[in-house]
Amino acid sequence: MSLPLRTALPDPALPSASDPLTVAADLARRLGDTANARDRAGGHAAQERGWIRDSGLLTLSIPEAYGGQGADWPTVLHAVRILARADSALAHVFGFHHLQLAGIALYGTPPQQRRFLTQTVDQQLFWGNALNPLDRRTTAVDTGDGFRLDGVKSFSSGSVGSDWLTVSAWHAATGTALIGVLPTRQAGVAVQADWDAFGQKQTDSGNVHFDAVALPADQVLQAPGVAATPQSTLRSQVAQLIMTNLYLGIAEGAFEAARAYTVDEARPWFASGAPSAAADPLIQHRFGQLWLKLRPAAVLADQAARELERLFRLGPDVTARQRGELAVAGAEAKVLAHVASIDISNQMFELTGARSTSARYGYDRFWRNARVHTLHDPVDYKIRDLGRHALDGSLPEPTAYS
Amino acid sequence: MSLPLRTALPDPALPSASDPLTVAADLARRLGDTANARDRAGGHAAQERGWIRDSGLLTLSIPEAYGGQGADWPTVLHAVRILARADSALAHVFGFHHLQLAGIALYGTPPQQRRFLTQTVDQQLFWGNALNPLDRRTTAVDTGDGFRLDGVKSFSSGSVGSDWLTVSAWHAATGTALIGVLPTRQAGVAVQADWDAFGQKQTDSGNVHFDAVALPADQVLQAPGVAATPQSTLRSQVAQLIMTNLYLGIAEGAFEAARAYTVDEARPWFASGAPSAAADPLIQHRFGQLWLKLRPAAVLADQAARELERLFRLGPDVTARQRGELAVAGAEAKVLAHVASIDISNQMFELTGARSTSARYGYDRFWRNARVHTLHDPVDYKIRDLGRHALDGSLPEPTAYS
Amino acid sequence: MSLPLRTALPDPALPSASDPLTVAADLARRLGDTANARDRAGGHAAQERGWIRDSGLLTLSIPEAYGGQGADWPTVLHAVRILARADSALAHVFGFHHLQLAGIALYGTPPQQRRFLTQTVDQQLFWGNALNPLDRRTTAVDTGDGFRLDGVKSFSSGSVGSDWLTVSAWHAATGTALIGVLPTRQAGVAVQADWDAFGQKQTDSGNVHFDAVALPADQVLQAPGVAATPQSTLRSQVAQLIMTNLYLGIAEGAFEAARAYTVDEARPWFASGAPSAAADPLIQHRFGQLWLKLRPAAVLADQAARELERLFRLGPDVTARQRGELAVAGAEAKVLAHVASIDISNQMFELTGARSTSARYGYDRFWRNARVHTLHDPVDYKIRDLGRHALDGSLPEPTAYS
Amino acid sequence: MSLPLRTALPDPALPSASDPLTVAADLARRLGDTANARDRAGGHAAQERGWIRDSGLLTLSIPEAYGGQGADWPTVLHAVRILARADSALAHVFGFHHLQLAGIALYGTPPQQRRFLTQTVDQQLFWGNALNPLDRRTTAVDTGDGFRLDGVKSFSSGSVGSDWLTVSAWHAATGTALIGVLPTRQAGVAVQADWDAFGQKQTDSGNVHFDAVALPADQVLQAPGVAATPQSTLRSQVAQLIMTNLYLGIAEGAFEAARAYTVDEARPWFASGAPSAAADPLIQHRFGQLWLKLRPAAVLADQAARELERLFRLGPDVTARQRGELAVAGAEAKVLAHVASIDISNQMFELTGARSTSARYGYDRFWRNARVHTLHDPVDYKIRDLGRHALDGSLPEPTAYS
Repeated sequence: MSLPLRTALPDPALPSASDPLTVAADLARRLGDTANARDRAGGHAAQERGWIRDSGLLTLSIPEAYGGQGADWPTVLHAVRILARADSALAHVFGFHHLQLAGIALYGTPPQQRRFLTQTVDQQLFWGNALNPLDRRTTAVDTGDGFRLDGVKSFSSGSVGSDWLTVSAWHAATGTALIGVLPTRQAGVAVQADWDAFGQKQTDSGNVHFDAVALPADQVLQAPGVAATPQSTLRSQVAQLIMTNLYLGIAEGAFEAARAYTVDEARPWFASGAPSAAADPLIQHRFGQLWLKLRPAAVLADQAARELERLFRLGPDVTARQRGELAVAGAEAKVLAHVASIDISNQMFELTGARSTSARYGYDRFWRNARVHTLHDPVDYKIRDLGRHALDGSLPEPTAYS
Repeated sequence: MSLPLRTALPDPALPSASDPLTVAADLARRLGDTANARDRAGGHAAQERGWIRDSGLLTLSIPEAYGGQGADWPTVLHAVRILARADSALAHVFGFHHLQLAGIALYGTPPQQRRFLTQTVDQQLFWGNALNPLDRRTTAVDTGDGFRLDGVKSFSSGSVGSDWLTVSAWHAATGTALIGVLPTRQAGVAVQADWDAFGQKQTDSGNVHFDAVALPADQVLQAPGVAATPQSTLRSQVAQLIMTNLYLGIAEGAFEAARAYTVDEARPWFASGAPSAAADPLIQHRFGQLWLKLRPAAVLADQAARELERLFRLGPDVTARQRGELAVAGAEAKVLAHVASIDISNQMFELTGARSTSARYGYDRFWRNARVHTLHDPVDYKIRDLGRHALDGSLPEPTAYS
Repeated sequence: MSLPLRTALPDPALPSASDPLTVAADLARRLGDTANARDRAGGHAAQERGWIRDSGLLTLSIPEAYGGQGADWPTVLHAVRILARADSALAHVFGFHHLQLAGIALYGTPPQQRRFLTQTVDQQLFWGNALNPLDRRTTAVDTGDGFRLDGVKSFSSGSVGSDWLTVSAWHAATGTALIGVLPTRQAGVAVQADWDAFGQKQTDSGNVHFDAVALPADQVLQAPGVAATPQSTLRSQVAQLIMTNLYLGIAEGAFEAARAYTVDEARPWFASGAPSAAADPLIQHRFGQLWLKLRPAAVLADQAARELERLFRLGPDVTARQRGELAVAGAEAKVLAHVASIDISNQMFELTGARSTSARYGYDRFWRNARVHTLHDPVDYKIRDLGRHALDGSLPEPTAYS
Repeated sequence: MSLPLRTALPDPALPSASDPLTVAADLARRLGDTANARDRAGGHAAQERGWIRDSGLLTLSIPEAYGGQGADWPTVLHAVRILARADSALAHVFGFHHLQLAGIALYGTPPQQRRFLTQTVDQQLFWGNALNPLDRRTTAVDTGDGFRLDGVKSFSSGSVGSDWLTVSAWHAATGTALIGVLPTRQAGVAVQADWDAFGQKQTDSGNVHFDAVALPADQVLQAPGVAATPQSTLRSQVAQLIMTNLYLGIAEGAFEAARAYTVDEARPWFASGAPSAAADPLIQHRFGQLWLKLRPAAVLADQAARELERLFRLGPDVTARQRGELAVAGAEAKVLAHVASIDISNQMFELTGARSTSARYGYDRFWRNARVHTLHDPVDYKIRDLGRHALDGSLPEPTAYS
């Protein structure tokens, strides 16, 4: 399922078997073998999450000081993209694991960083997400030495099978949300495997229920009432770029499937007069159009990833303006990747034809995965934000989505 | 699942419970109740095909002289569209039943018409398709009193569970294809329930195998070496318009699903400032754009249906030019309906959002059904045919696809 | 410049030289000879307006009872379209003349209708427009036996060279606009030939100044404070359909120019391998796509024209619902015609190539004319209105634009 | 007319008044003041070409060794883009001057380079183009010490007012084209100011006639029968990237005009409920969509420019594969810039509305300029080339257009 170098977006040079992108490519190949079958079955991919753990890639983004591999964001995001070409559900679980780690780095105190990141390396922890600030159904009440959490959190990606969770909860006393971390198997936490979307089936994105769950003060990353900073709100830019690279991976996977099928299996249409499907000018032209969706999305995503890396390293020195300009660059890349993933996974069938719809290929999974995942936040509002920026230079307001 | 009159393409007045479109609407309602569940299960819908049979609609297109209901093509095609809003797989089985009957009317001698159409009424026969002239793997050899058929035929819509089949076979001696009719349960005919596409799952469109099957001379509708006439080649226009109305039905079903969800269930995006999703100007605008895909497709399809009816009644008097101009009108409508079904079933999710991807709605079936069915023949060649026509007035060459 | 019957939207049968559409086609041919030159020169086309007058077509929409030709709206609108293929500026002047007559029929009392329509026939009057309710700079003050008008009115199409004007003026006492008619050469009326848009140059659409102009009571069509009725607000639907047919005429003219150039003058691109430009599959495909913009727009425009005719004849019996549904049908047709005229006049050059940009063809005038005229009211709000209608069945609010 | 830094594609830091991009920006400002008026007048812009000469920018791409400024290609192309924002006709004349210099560098011998480039610096020569290999009407016949040229060459950009010309001529004896350089005022050379396209009016791109013109051997850059090399065919990539940056400049100029008009002059549509045009969500959304045309085109053009620079410096060591991959990158950028310039210059009016079509703004010139210039070679064949590349990795065949 890896794209041949000659046609597609070349991965950076992969010098050795221990290079993380080589590791990711190997893992992608292995996941690709069963991706179609697992898409049909759905459910929790315990074995395959084990492979991810075994690959060592769970420590990819963790600084070397804490025992991690200290990879930069372009590398981490590229790994997400490589996995997503083959299996965008597990790529999401993988990407969101690193999003939780980013949250610790961005919100946590140095001791918290040391504790949780070291622990993640030592115990090969898998992190899941229960942070969704638009969903106020989980509440936090002060208990003196921390908080008590109650309620439910939906769209909790990677929660099933995780070791620890990042969680947000509504704190009525201050009218703000706190953010903390919790072991998934703590008393009162119930993770439900009830995710039933028609795509991204194995993302373990169901509901998490909290019943009188104790959150100790030293596990609170952002206390209630504490204002977000340009640094802390970089977290949503990490999330947006993970999704962007996930869409790109789907787009690249679909493109390569269409390409290989056209070259290897498709027959020329009888009225075309072409000796092969790949020699048909109308097919060549449509491939060219889809290529022009893919390439700019990839180039702008890579630019934004480099800028994220730069700002991430600035730490508390990052300014609101820098953060806002990154949000613009990220929004540009995300909309292009959104469109690329949807258009390629949709239109590929005009190129490959009726026989390519057989379940033995499972090519519809590209569209279903792209379609489900691209609904994280409405693309029309991302486009509107870009329009506002173009009109008067205004920067997107920092939210969980921008 | 029927569209509310106020918003959508109104069906003609439905005067009484015995009116065929009322019957179709009732049947659609019943099919709609389980369409999502049956889409997931796939396979042969024996019970539901029984409902179609019980509805009496199998005789809809048969002239009253043979005991049928004598409906015109606009009515038959409208019934296909109504069923497709709720269940495009069974709508296809239903439509292709009438396509086989059209073939008998267009190719058959008067005695053949009398025999097979009367029999269809008397025995409530369900017809399936094994006619696919691009597939020459089924051969016909002269036997003196008819032909012996051997080989296989793919994409045989409605073959499973059918009573009779229309079949084409390659006759090497003349280098042409013959067309005949056969009882499905005749010795040597083996229908395989091996259709496994990711959409239109219950169309029973698998392979039919022929092993030394005897085709008597009086069951041959078009003998080898006999030239097609403008009249006989109307059959492919019937097929094209059935598909056009099927795409329209899918488009209308998806549009109505999106509309109802937006009005009844969707929440306004927090950054929109709108009091409801339905009041969001960006949502209203996108609905307007999708509406502008749907309406012209429906209007042009209805125009082409009326023209088909007119030419069908002309019988042998239809000219090549009339037939060609119908093919142009049909191509226009088919491309528009193709685009409408794909764009609406794809973009509806930008309107309905993440929660609408739950399996409990099964809204992805609209796209999967449209995507599989619209690959019958390449849309880019239909557009090219229209371009040629626009350039120099040339009419599409009569084929099984144009 | 008339479209060859074989390729384009055929005009209804033109039985005799006195048939109005034959007359329009002859006039179009004559206007077409100098359209390119006059587009470059701009200004007032006195001679050509004389030809229109001489053709007799100024009485086309006037009932036979008043000495007119009593043509129905489909015929009048078709004449607009035919003229617009050759010269969309003069087609606009012609169409808006009939819009003023429609206003008299819709707003005027029977005696007013008799007086002004008879006079129009007898004196071959040419009417211009100074009705623009969004522009409140012209005021009306009661004078006892009528009103005194002061101020200025912009976008007054056809005002230069007109005999009579329809005018709207803001009546502060009631907070409403009145509508009346005035001889253009009346004291205090100053028509400025100051229209300077980059397209539709000869529409004479400049500013009209009113300086203590007396408007007698019997020339008031709609008095201040009188509520608009479903009948009277049909006027904006007449206006919208005139514009729709104007856009269609431009689209058809551009399409035919591209077609003829491609067939007669274009050379095949050296890398295409095609023997001629017209045989190039990529060119054929793009012509097909443009054809699919043109045809649905024309079909829907014709449907809406028939419905306008029906409601126009209902007179005071027309209901708000009927009027609203016509507005929906008109909006559908207008958006499609807008898109067709812009896309065809813009994309035609991808088909005809560099040499077709020579001033000797003047093919850019199609885009300039379409571009200027399609800005009458924002297309995005028309699309939004259709989205609202699709969502909840709401009908566009009657305004001067919907 | 320069874009405000906050919204648009920021130019690289402009350190001092002598920085070439500062010089270009100043020159653009000066050209912008009269661009609308000169667009209407057309003809040869002698005075403004004098300003370009006086700016010193004619030596921008010439190596310092020959007395030039030694700017890299990204800088030269950026200067083209800056000028094109204000005046794309003179930007073309400027860009094609540097194309001729590139041709000398790529084809010429070291002595030829020294001679012609030094002379260009010393005499501030302005170069024009008479090289158009598809046009074989100019022939070269051997004369012993060189060649005699006869015939005509069309589309000779910048020829009027030039000092020297690059010329191609068909050499029948070898069946190949030679390339040479000539003083424009040499006997037998007649430059006609007969360019009459509806856009890019002041590019001086008329016909050049050759009547027994002597071309000495030492002015032949590429002799007949000499095979093109990867290095020499870089010339067409320089040409393609000049055009790409020209389209981008037009797109940026149109975007900025629309932005400024919307913010400063446009009124909100009465039905929008928005307090200003710039606050209308439908307008913001459309600006966002246009921004997403502009940004990727600029980013990919800049990437391709850097790659051109790298290969240009490799000189004879550049390989066919490197050259081909540059052609792919250039094609990607050129198609995106083509689409951006056409879509923005066309759609800007949906945002700015009817009043913005006044001749006092002259905003239609963006579309006319983009429309004429983007027809240099067919975009559909560039897209097809990209499709072929995506399908099997094939690289565009080196031609004058790819």
